[in-house]
Amino acid sequence: MSLCIDGKLLLKRIEHLSRIGRTPEGGVTRPGFSIKESQARTLVEKWMAEAGLETSVDPALNLIGTCWGKERGAPVVVTGSHLDSVPNGGRLDGVLGVLGALEAVRSLILSKIEIRRSIRVVAFAAEEPNIYGFSTVGSRAISSSLPEGALERKDPKGLTLCELLSRRGGRPEEISRARFDPSQVAAFVELHIEQGPFLDIQKIPIGIVSTLCGIKRLLITVKGRPDHAGTMPMNLRKDALAAGAQLILAIEMICKSKGEGMVGTVGKMTLAPNQVNVVPGRAELELDLRTHDDELFDRIYAEILEACDAVSNERSLEISLTARTGEPPVSLPEDLSRVIVNVCQDFHLSYLKMPSWAGHDATQMAKITKTAVIFVPSRQGLSHCPQEWTDGKDIKTGVRVLSETLLRLANWDE
Amino acid sequence: MSLCIDGKLLLKRIEHLSRIGRTPEGGVTRPGFSIKESQARTLVEKWMAEAGLETSVDPALNLIGTCWGKERGAPVVVTGSHLDSVPNGGRLDGVLGVLGALEAVRSLILSKIEIRRSIRVVAFAAEEPNIYGFSTVGSRAISSSLPEGALERKDPKGLTLCELLSRRGGRPEEISRARFDPSQVAAFVELHIEQGPFLDIQKIPIGIVSTLCGIKRLLITVKGRPDHAGTMPMNLRKDALAAGAQLILAIEMICKSKGEGMVGTVGKMTLAPNQVNVVPGRAELELDLRTHDDELFDRIYAEILEACDAVSNERSLEISLTARTGEPPVSLPEDLSRVIVNVCQDFHLSYLKMPSWAGHDATQMAKITKTAVIFVPSRQGLSHCPQEWTDGKDIKTGVRVLSETLLRLANWDE
Repeated sequence: MSLCIDGKLLLKRIEHLSRIGRTPEGGVTRPGFSIKESQARTLVEKWMAEAGLETSVDPALNLIGTCWGKERGAPVVVTGSHLDSVPNGGRLDGVLGVLGALEAVRSLILSKIEIRRSIRVVAFAAEEPNIYGFSTVGSRAISSSLPEGALERKDPKGLTLCELLSRRGGRPEEISRARFDPSQVAAFVELHIEQGPFLDIQKIPIGIVSTLCGIKRLLITVKGRPDHAGTMPMNLRKDALAAGAQLILAIEMICKSKGEGMVGTVGKMTLAPNQVNVVPGRAELELDLRTHDDELFDRIYAEILEACDAVSNERSLEISLTARTGEPPVSLPEDLSRVIVNVCQDFHLSYLKMPSWAGHDATQMAKITKTAVIFVPSRQGLSHCPQEWTDGKDIKTGVRVLSETLLRLANWDE
Repeated sequence: MSLCIDGKLLLKRIEHLSRIGRTPEGGVTRPGFSIKESQARTLVEKWMAEAGLETSVDPALNLIGTCWGKERGAPVVVTGSHLDSVPNGGRLDGVLGVLGALEAVRSLILSKIEIRRSIRVVAFAAEEPNIYGFSTVGSRAISSSLPEGALERKDPKGLTLCELLSRRGGRPEEISRARFDPSQVAAFVELHIEQGPFLDIQKIPIGIVSTLCGIKRLLITVKGRPDHAGTMPMNLRKDALAAGAQLILAIEMICKSKGEGMVGTVGKMTLAPNQVNVVPGRAELELDLRTHDDELFDRIYAEILEACDAVSNERSLEISLTARTGEPPVSLPEDLSRVIVNVCQDFHLSYLKMPSWAGHDATQMAKITKTAVIFVPSRQGLSHCPQEWTDGKDIKTGVRVLSETLLRLANWDE
């Protein structure tokens, strides 16, 4: 039996949502805890209610839509993803996991099939990296894993996360009430675009994630000396940008030397004073490292530290390396992914068991419940950019698999 | 005879002015055409008027204070510098040349010595590099050398220079009236801190500039591809920052290879999307090149272009190199610097004839009149930073030399 997914409605809604924060390049800029994210949440809440879900917004601004099962006291099945985006990102990252889950549950409701456990569709707040130095704010609140002092962290203008959350209608003083009781959750399943090229290259419609990569974020601060770009001779300078350039290339080489076991990116760099006629006095490099092998982190960290010391000595300037956030790799449970494998086999769909190199709300949810992630292909593997794209057919296939998976989990006896 | 310079008053005023735009680090942020620059101009205009100068502000927002000479029709002697600063710059760059000139002329007025030519003290508007891609806006307006279409250039938010100028009370539609008629100007003398280490190292109080360096500004744009920092394998990326890092180091090496004949600085870099979990898709590097040998520019340009091509081929991304502004080196006239040499000899002061590696309003004024620049030492050569400093004694000596020079020029027969 196949549930009746309205692919046309889903694609229309994805398009509709992509207008909130649309950029001139056709991308989406909808940062976590921005007004745009609030607008998106309000719209999705309306669609949830229309589908017959009971909606609420928790103190961390997670939107939760509940489809009640026959046994209200039974541990629930949770699905969902996020509505925020990176600057000039794509229309599917996060959104597919929310609207796809809504469509999956809507089809269950319309089918009038009886379900035992309740299903909760969650639009997690602020999944992408933020100015406060961490990601997945909403799912961290739900899984009780916000970093120490997270709410008191300040943006460059002095605004705390606590104040920002209040400003958008959140209730930071009650944030601990966002927590899900692990004994009351049966499973979490997230539908997501792959964001990488492997399904697209191999023309496989479904990816079933075996492990979630570990992610560490490091901050490298280079303190040089701001000098006049004309009057200070080349050999007397302490150019923080030139030192930073050496480090960027060293980090690239270190990560490449680990073959397919590691990726590393200096994605963000802040210069001061960043003026054409001043030798850069200070550079901050923000580094994102990912691996499925936790021990690699320590080796890489040591190698980067060595590079920092070498450049610092060569150029007589100060370089510091600080770990900001870190999540170890997570192996996802076999019994849960077996349910998805069975769905694919029953639907005669090819699938690939694969690691995920992305950060997901699933990484947080895995701390409190059995967790699975279903991937659909990303054209050319492009993501976090306006070119992010998945064919409508693949989107519909992903939602069918999610819908059937949710149905089986709702009636699942672990 | 030595004019009576009030060093204490001058230092007090320098301190006073440094409070407009003071930064937490003790520096000054007072960009060209900012409200802070307007506040500084208003204060200096008041001090000019108190000293007995007749003040006016021209359409480009240059502040002009005139001390009338006996022969009102005779070509005038002009002196001055600027009140704007780089971000978190020092308190003396520009300011010394304005307040020092004001104190020099004030002392002439107080001495009641008769002068033949009028003397104009100018606080030139917006000397430092701006968001519109060029420097020395005010002195370019006076010397009729604004770049083509300068007023229509837009900042990243779409605000034209024309609109910004109007917003601050300028009159862009009349900007051609800011021009000085070259036949009505006898000479221009700018007092400035050296901004380099040579006078300080040699303990020489006065520098007399022989040549002004040529300055070229280039823009390098690297177009890579913004990708997800986890899911895109290292070897499939088009990382604009890593490419930029290679160029920064190549440029440093190219400029160092020219010995003391050249300095080059990548002072500004803009990344997009500049997000820790996105591979940088675009990088803009702004490059400042300086030399006293015009032919070196062409060689350097060719070498940088070669480096761009090499990196572009290696990484399969697009790199473009654009020349933004350029000023050739200028040799300053012997007969005018002879006047300053004579003053130093009469005052028994040691002096150094030296090239200037800085950009100055003098570079623009040299296009319309005989021009000289007097340097005072900068402690450790530091400039464009909060640590910028010149001893009060050296400041007073510089102003004494300027004052006597202006007196001689006011009665000078070329």
